[in-house]
This record gives sequence, C-alpha cells and structure tokens, in this order.
Amino acid sequence: MKTHTITINPRFCETDALGHLSNISYFIYLEEARTRLFDELSCGGRTGDWHFILASAKCDFVNQGFFGRRLRVETNVSRIGHKSFQCIHRIIEEETGKLIAIGEAAVVYFNFHTQASEPLPDGLRALLAQYLVSAAEEADSSLRCQKP
Amino acid sequence: MKTHTITINPRFCETDALGHLSNISYFIYLEEARTRLFDELSCGGRTGDWHFILASAKCDFVNQGFFGRRLRVETNVSRIGHKSFQCIHRIIEEETGKLIAIGEAAVVYFNFHTQASEPLPDGLRALLAQYLVSAAEEADSSLRCQKP
Amino acid sequence: MKTHTITINPRFCETDALGHLSNISYFIYLEEARTRLFDELSCGGRTGDWHFILASAKCDFVNQGFFGRRLRVETNVSRIGHKSFQCIHRIIEEETGKLIAIGEAAVVYFNFHTQASEPLPDGLRALLAQYLVSAAEEADSSLRCQKP
Amino acid sequence: MKTHTITINPRFCETDALGHLSNISYFIYLEEARTRLFDELSCGGRTGDWHFILASAKCDFVNQGFFGRRLRVETNVSRIGHKSFQCIHRIIEEETGKLIAIGEAAVVYFNFHTQASEPLPDGLRALLAQYLVSAAEEADSSLRCQKP
Repeated sequence: MKTHTITINPRFCETDALGHLSNISYFIYLEEARTRLFDELSCGGRTGDWHFILASAKCDFVNQGFFGRRLRVETNVSRIGHKSFQCIHRIIEEETGKLIAIGEAAVVYFNFHTQASEPLPDGLRALLAQYLVSAAEEADSSLRCQKP
Repeated sequence: MKTHTITINPRFCETDALGHLSNISYFIYLEEARTRLFDELSCGGRTGDWHFILASAKCDFVNQGFFGRRLRVETNVSRIGHKSFQCIHRIIEEETGKLIAIGEAAVVYFNFHTQASEPLPDGLRALLAQYLVSAAEEADSSLRCQKP
Repeated sequence: MKTHTITINPRFCETDALGHLSNISYFIYLEEARTRLFDELSCGGRTGDWHFILASAKCDFVNQGFFGRRLRVETNVSRIGHKSFQCIHRIIEEETGKLIAIGEAAVVYFNFHTQASEPLPDGLRALLAQYLVSAAEEADSSLRCQKP
Repeated sequence: MKTHTITINPRFCETDALGHLSNISYFIYLEEARTRLFDELSCGGRTGDWHFILASAKCDFVNQGFFGRRLRVETNVSRIGHKSFQCIHRIIEEETGKLIAIGEAAVVYFNFHTQASEPLPDGLRALLAQYLVSAAEEADSSLRCQKP
C-alpha cells in the first residue's frame, strides 16, 4: 500500500487568537493533500479538466497544532465505490510524531459540463487502489488515534 | 425547541476556480454560526473567557453554493454530554430554500489555563437544552437532506 | 458626496495567534466592501458579468482590531480615470469610533473575454462620481488618520 | 545583497470564481515570505517572542496568477529606519519568470508586553542590512515591473 505524503509549514495567518492553528486551517491542509494526490495521479491538477467534487469532509482534532511546527499529512484511500471514493488523512507533527488530526473526505467523480457524477474510469480506479488501506489497517490506524 | 439562525453573505474570496463556494468556506460559516450561538448564550464571545474547543467538525456538501446567493445557517444541539456537546447545522440558500450543506460539530468544554476539559456548567447545560433537537426530529431532518 | 458603508462582524478564524485580527483579514473586509459597492451600483455582483479587476491594494494598519468588536467599513472613490478608478476605505471600530485601518484600491474596468481593460462606461462613471471624495476632504481624512 | 526566496504552491482554495488566484492570496504569500525571513534571521519564528507588527502592506497585481503554477517570492529590505523597516517583494511565476505581483510592507519592531514600538536592536539591523536593496537597484527593479 502506498501512502501519499506532503509536508505543511503552518502559516501565521492560519493560527487564531487561541494561539493554535484554527480548525479551518486543517481543512485547507486536507484539500491541499488531496489536490496534490490528484495531481500525482495525473488526473487533473489544472482547473480545465478537473473531475472531482467533494461530497463530504470531516476532521477530528486530536491534539492542538501550532505555528512553527511542521506537519506531515499522510493520505490513503479507504474505499473505492462506483462513482466516488473515500480518502483518509492523518496530520502528524513532524518533529514529535504526535497525531494532530484525522481527516476523512468523500470525493465524487464529477463532470462539470453535465453537472453530473460519472463512474470512476478504470485507470483512475487502479491508481487509487494502490493507496487503498485494508479494513484491518484502518481499524488499527484509528486505534492509534486514541489518546492514552 | 429553539433554532439559532444567522445569515451569511458569501464573499467573493470564498469562491474558488470551479465557480462555486470553496468547501473550506462552509467550515468558516459553521464556525461563525457556533461563535454567534455561544455569544448569544452569554458564555463567552471574547477570547479572554473562551471555554470551547472543537473536537470534530464535519460537513456534507449537498448542493453547490454560489457568490451572490445569501445563505441561512440554522444551528441546533443534537447531544449534550458530560464535558461536551454536539451541534448540527443546516446551510440553506435563502432565496430558494434549497439545502446546500449539513454540518456537525463536537464541542468540548475546555479550560485553557489547565489545558483540560471540564464538565459543562449547569447553566450552560440548561441553555443548550433549549436548542436540543429530539432524535425523531434529527432523523426527519436528515431525511430532508436526501437529494431526490 | 455619498459614502458606502458596510458593517463587519470579525470572525474568530480571522484572528491570529497575536490575539488580534490578522492583517490578511483586512484585505478580505476591503474586498467585501468593494463587491458590495459594485453590487449597489448594479454593475455586476454576479460572476457572469463581472467587469472589475484589482490592480493594486493597500492597507495601513493604524490600530489593532479584535474579535468581538464590530467594524464599519466606509468606502469612497478617490479618483476616476479613463479605464480605472481608485477606492479609499476607512475601517472603524463601531463602538468606539477608533480608526483601525485605511485602505486603498486601484480597480481596472476589465473585459474577461478579451482579457483587456476597457474605458469606464459613462453610466458607471456617473455612479462612481457620487462617491467621489474631493482632494481637500481626502487630505483632511488622511490627517485624521495620524496617530497623535 | 542577499535576496530571501521562498516557493509557493498555490492552493486550490486560494483561487476565486474568476479562475485565477484571489487578490487576498497574495497577501498570504507575502506574510509567509516575511515570517520565513524573520525565522531565518533567528529573530522569532515562534509566537512567544514575536517582535514584529505590520504597519502597512501593499500589493500591485501585475499579471494574473493561477492554480497549478508555482510562484517564487523574492524578498528584500528597501529601508531600515529607527523602529521600523520596509520590505519589498516580487512574486514571480516560476516556470516562465513572468512577474505576477510586487509587494511592499512596513514592519514595526514592537513589544507586545508594553504594546509599544521599540528601536531595532543592532544585531537585527545588521542582519536586515544584508538584504538591503540600493535605491538604484530598487528603481531598476520597479522598471522591470512595467508591462511592455
């Protein structure tokens, strides 16, 4: 199983008055992780041939993140459906390895011209399958997310 | 049951190159709805005595939202726990009544000095209870969210 | 002379870890003021017939702004050229009347189909003229901006 | 003369419905360039000992920037005063070398405890001087910014 990884240098404007990263910022990081993954899959990093629409996004905030502490966003695919797939993300503080947040996203393969969803092409399906986490691994990963 | 309602005038910078509102923007609107609700509950709109930390946020994107079309964010409480509570939000296009998105948030009562969660005070618990949606209403509301 | 005015409820996510509003947020408020002005001029609040492109934006941060303190953004036109015009903005803390920031923007009348600037139509020119601040008023206004 | 350089991968949420990067996004990139410069000067990348407050920010938008096209932000110091200094930034499309935007910022050395500005320490002044662009170079650089 491949894991797609990016690093994020949190920006000062991504903090809030509580002194930590705003909850909004995590959704920015998760979108960034997905667009970079889609780009790597050669399936449209440019707007012109963009085929994805977000159906749902979720983030569990496990520990606070801070400006000045680099993050690693690890992304896998947790489910591949007929016209959609599901991503899972782990946001980890790079220096300490501490789990900061867990994200999930449901992505629909979408034709912006017809404004309708379409079946995932086989080529994309095969590429996504490389990132597919097994149910067992996913359960284990969610166990790792429990704070002691 | 009370429903907390705010209206949102989507900003141009909250759109993205797909011509609709960015998925990130919805999380901004949901946070705005919650902070305005917390303010109304007189339980701390100012940073100094802020008692809430977001444990989880979710948004289902049901229909696309657009610049120039006002939104209404309706917020209720779906669960009141010992140290936390759950909010549910409906984002509705004001002119048409079309459901745009459904949000959920888990909010923990948090002491920033001790950096630990604390039991919800009784006064706050009573105020939150006024916004509490029954399980039956919630099921009905989620049914309404299904696209035909 | 007319002055275009909007009020802004700063959002929690628009603060930063210094406890005040992020400098980025002011540019969001200034854009919001301009799009609302353009909408009022009936010259295109929707993307389809959008005719404006920003050539330059500036903000002087006079006093810190904070979450929980409403702002008023007053906008005037400071210069009307052949294919462009200049806006000036004052951001004021509503409760105290304290000047928080002064903004400026150069806006070009732009045809997105041809990707070229065009002369301001006479109708728009006349509408903008209603908001035109005289040089004397502008000088006075900038004097008011000096901190003692 | 040293030039501080960072690269920016524009994020999808930093675009707007006009299909290009939102004008707001440039101010995010400029702040990022400054905080990374300040970090390199070892003068406080962390909130705890943050000594800078932005007095003014400006951006001239020379050409449109787009998602999928990496940017380089080059930063120099254009003036060193008693309690403040001025930065200039050039935002350049990496692949083509095309100038996208020119930024300016006035930064005040600020004591957040006393909430007052303070003279620049000699050590910081010396470090900033390494990035100081001469008046001649600055004039030349602004000439380069003219579109043919």
